[in-house]
Amino acid sequence: MMKIYKKAILPKDFKANGIASGIRKLKKLDLALLYSNIPAKASCLFTTNKIQAAPIRVTKQYLKKNKYFQAIIINSGNANCFTGKAGIKDAEEVARTLASILKIKKESILVFSTGIIGKRLPVPKIKKAIPELVRGLSAGGIAKAKQAIMTTDTFAKEVTVKLDIAGRRVTLCGIAKGAGMIAPDMATMLGFILADANITHNALRKALKIAVANSFNCITVDGCMSTNDTVAILANASCGNVLIDSDSGKYFNLFVKALSLVCLELAKMIVRDAEGATKFIQIKIGEAKNFSEAKKAALSIANSNLFKTAVYGENPNFGRIVAALGASGIDLKEKDLKIKVSPLNKKEINVYVSLKRGNYSAIVYTSDLTPGYIKINAEYN
Amino acid sequence: MMKIYKKAILPKDFKANGIASGIRKLKKLDLALLYSNIPAKASCLFTTNKIQAAPIRVTKQYLKKNKYFQAIIINSGNANCFTGKAGIKDAEEVARTLASILKIKKESILVFSTGIIGKRLPVPKIKKAIPELVRGLSAGGIAKAKQAIMTTDTFAKEVTVKLDIAGRRVTLCGIAKGAGMIAPDMATMLGFILADANITHNALRKALKIAVANSFNCITVDGCMSTNDTVAILANASCGNVLIDSDSGKYFNLFVKALSLVCLELAKMIVRDAEGATKFIQIKIGEAKNFSEAKKAALSIANSNLFKTAVYGENPNFGRIVAALGASGIDLKEKDLKIKVSPLNKKEINVYVSLKRGNYSAIVYTSDLTPGYIKINAEYN
Repeated sequence: MMKIYKKAILPKDFKANGIASGIRKLKKLDLALLYSNIPAKASCLFTTNKIQAAPIRVTKQYLKKNKYFQAIIINSGNANCFTGKAGIKDAEEVARTLASILKIKKESILVFSTGIIGKRLPVPKIKKAIPELVRGLSAGGIAKAKQAIMTTDTFAKEVTVKLDIAGRRVTLCGIAKGAGMIAPDMATMLGFILADANITHNALRKALKIAVANSFNCITVDGCMSTNDTVAILANASCGNVLIDSDSGKYFNLFVKALSLVCLELAKMIVRDAEGATKFIQIKIGEAKNFSEAKKAALSIANSNLFKTAVYGENPNFGRIVAALGASGIDLKEKDLKIKVSPLNKKEINVYVSLKRGNYSAIVYTSDLTPGYIKINAEYN
Repeated sequence: MMKIYKKAILPKDFKANGIASGIRKLKKLDLALLYSNIPAKASCLFTTNKIQAAPIRVTKQYLKKNKYFQAIIINSGNANCFTGKAGIKDAEEVARTLASILKIKKESILVFSTGIIGKRLPVPKIKKAIPELVRGLSAGGIAKAKQAIMTTDTFAKEVTVKLDIAGRRVTLCGIAKGAGMIAPDMATMLGFILADANITHNALRKALKIAVANSFNCITVDGCMSTNDTVAILANASCGNVLIDSDSGKYFNLFVKALSLVCLELAKMIVRDAEGATKFIQIKIGEAKNFSEAKKAALSIANSNLFKTAVYGENPNFGRIVAALGASGIDLKEKDLKIKVSPLNKKEINVYVSLKRGNYSAIVYTSDLTPGYIKINAEYN
């Protein structure tokens, strides 16, 4: 009944578009718009970085002031972060311009940016591009939107899950951008999920939290937490299912399952497309005292440069796993550790560590550290 | 009065040697011995990694059982870590063999290892080499000892400081090994300091703590904490100075100053020789609420792969400093941050960040992240 599609298929009453506004060079698509014909409920999870980009601060304001949303606008090529009060005004100006053309209030728009930190957003370019961005809105436009949010990504991340809820076909469509600066501590990239489900605000928030905890918050590329990253969901109720309530058991659980699948697929794609990565690594910690301990141990391995270079070199240097576990801050005993690593000459690597401390487990996804990562990040600006 | 020499000059009544015992290939020196003709006081600071190598566990036992020490034996090429009970026996066997030839008790020997984790120590090779190692002890032998402790180091780390304490010339001689797996959380490499000072146990311990806090514990290469690393000091009182007591003010402070200089010089050399490094980076955080906050902020930048690759690429991407600060867990305000970075096209880079939160500061030393680091760590085994 639940079906997964490896491409973005917009749910009912959603449109999208992406254009090249000139923020990025070479006419690269850099401005994306996701639009719901009817007001939708929204929920967002933001980076926990103490320095938060201006659009995040503006979006948080709007989320406080308003209950229903119709548009998400995202630019790549400029993070509008560490830009002070001017940055706030810039983000608001983008929302205001879009609002006047869409004929909605600016507080029903969510604004996001990704790219370089510390430079003013080229607002005139964006303002000039918005009318065309709106004119081009269509169901097929998601193909351009998913491209426009990319930075160093080498492929677009997209997935759609369809499922039946009480006889209605509900669609959840997700797109994301990732690449570097990926570390788990709340939404660590940009991820947008559009759903035509009918769900309460509370249930939507709760479902997103659960889905993100085991997906976007369980991936790490370089341990660097971004200032901009967010997972946002809009649910416009267009499919007309019976209202999903956070207490409504079966339907809520179904929705969580579908949303978790969308988030996990996107998160894994981000890791697969990690800057310079040649391997996809799954690290499972078993027999931990609790989930948080298991995750901490897994992340300590996943963020160890020594482990990641060993995997890149296909060098079965298990000592680096041991050293990373010992440095994780968990109360381990050497004699209790059991470590299994799948053959390193493959593209997909599995690491399993048993701590012999309890019954909990966690899985974290990461990539190897390669000369490609350094090349990309030495040159990016 | 305090003079610094960029080479290891043994203090009175110390001898040393280094030989190729066959642990490492190509007849590389791999076994070092530091010896005091007379019993010396000792103090050690160890890695805080929960997984500690067998020699550290054995040395800790000896430090508990005994008050005076005469020898430090170190092998490179094998860390004797994650080797279980057998590893403990192996380390003890090395001490026992050396003790019988030196005609001292095994508990007056400090044992250390560095190299690959998870492989049994080739004890027969070491036992066979010990008689020759002892026969070759000499004042000039420090030149071989400093070579024998190296792993991926490209040059030996050595420094000597001489100073007058109440009319007596006191010598402190330090050697160290470093390279990768350098993160600050107690002694993060192997460092050995030999001194002919007359000092109480308490004062020696206190002085080492102070000296290490601002040197070895303020460097990071890759944020990876090792299972083996230690800073050890022997003080044999041979220079006959008046006893330095931790309460004796002036002389204690002089000794701390000299020891801090030795530790800082060695620590900086480790960073300069960081695996694959092309730049030496000094990160100073000023106007912090306290030292620990300043250090935390500095380390967050120093351990950011994105910052380190930007420096390698001479790419003035200040946003990565901002992002790292925001992720450090410190309660920052964007508008209070002041960031200065010296030109990136030099070998020595200075980063200064003012937090505008108080009057404390900290300096951390690190290196850039380069394809060389990956090459070395992908291939090392």
